[in-house]
Amino acid sequence: MNFGIVVFPPKAVQDAANSYRKRFDPHYTLIQPHLTIREAEAWDEESLKQAVSWLTAVSAKHAPFSVRLNRFSTFYPVSNVVYMAPERPEPLAKLHEAVCQGPLALSERKYTFAPHLTVAQEVGGDEMHDIYASLRPVPLDFPFVVDRLHLLYQTDNGAWTAHQTFLLQGQG
Amino acid sequence: MNFGIVVFPPKAVQDAANSYRKRFDPHYTLIQPHLTIREAEAWDEESLKQAVSWLTAVSAKHAPFSVRLNRFSTFYPVSNVVYMAPERPEPLAKLHEAVCQGPLALSERKYTFAPHLTVAQEVGGDEMHDIYASLRPVPLDFPFVVDRLHLLYQTDNGAWTAHQTFLLQGQG
Repeated sequence: MNFGIVVFPPKAVQDAANSYRKRFDPHYTLIQPHLTIREAEAWDEESLKQAVSWLTAVSAKHAPFSVRLNRFSTFYPVSNVVYMAPERPEPLAKLHEAVCQGPLALSERKYTFAPHLTVAQEVGGDEMHDIYASLRPVPLDFPFVVDRLHLLYQTDNGAWTAHQTFLLQGQG
Repeated sequence: MNFGIVVFPPKAVQDAANSYRKRFDPHYTLIQPHLTIREAEAWDEESLKQAVSWLTAVSAKHAPFSVRLNRFSTFYPVSNVVYMAPERPEPLAKLHEAVCQGPLALSERKYTFAPHLTVAQEVGGDEMHDIYASLRPVPLDFPFVVDRLHLLYQTDNGAWTAHQTFLLQGQG
């Protein structure tokens, strides 16, 4: 079973993101707008058990932190993705590093972790350029506090279900 | 903002339910297959805070329990809904009663709580009869343990996002 770890931004951010995702992201109906902290990976029961213990420990020590999504950006030419970008990637990268240790260490790092909230993906190159050109000038100012992680699993239709929430309970 | 409280059955049950929901349930892309414990209701920040405290307390005392979905049933003629029904509604009804007290007491009870996992809804009367006629003979045997609740909220597009999980931690 595939498991992934994400942060969901507040409803206002999700509503804004969904207005774009509805048109430009084929994952629109599979999962709500999110910032991926750890990519999907197939786990067995034992891996899940270890992951839950690990996330319980990590979230107990990690303090909530502020994020501000302040612009649209793109991963082009690496991939045809347009996303909302955080002003400072560091706090999310720090959470990613804290999570991806111990039983959740990544066996292979394909690319540097770049926190992002995808609003367009799996679109053609020309369309992607049009989308990015139209979104880049749109002012974005979504500050919010990240105070929890969600562990999700995937069903056969590709959609994601909540398995467990982990509240960040460390002292800032 | 609308908040609701649900139980998600295991992946195998969700996959089976989705094979029907895909065709017969317009909510298919809005939420994964679930058993509603408390219907959606608009809450403000203060109500949410009280609800989280209440659910934390209730889940700390309530023990995990077994459920077995063993047949398809319908709410017709009250509503055009076909659902997977639990062999014994009592344990889920007990959880519903425990949750819907204190700050989560229900102001008006429209109908008796009947735990169900919807696979068809908002279909015409004739179609509903056809669906029910075709599903009623299908053997169903999905035993599983309910060991957590999920508090969800709804975005403007009607889809639901996980807010927090509450693990049932009482002694059986």
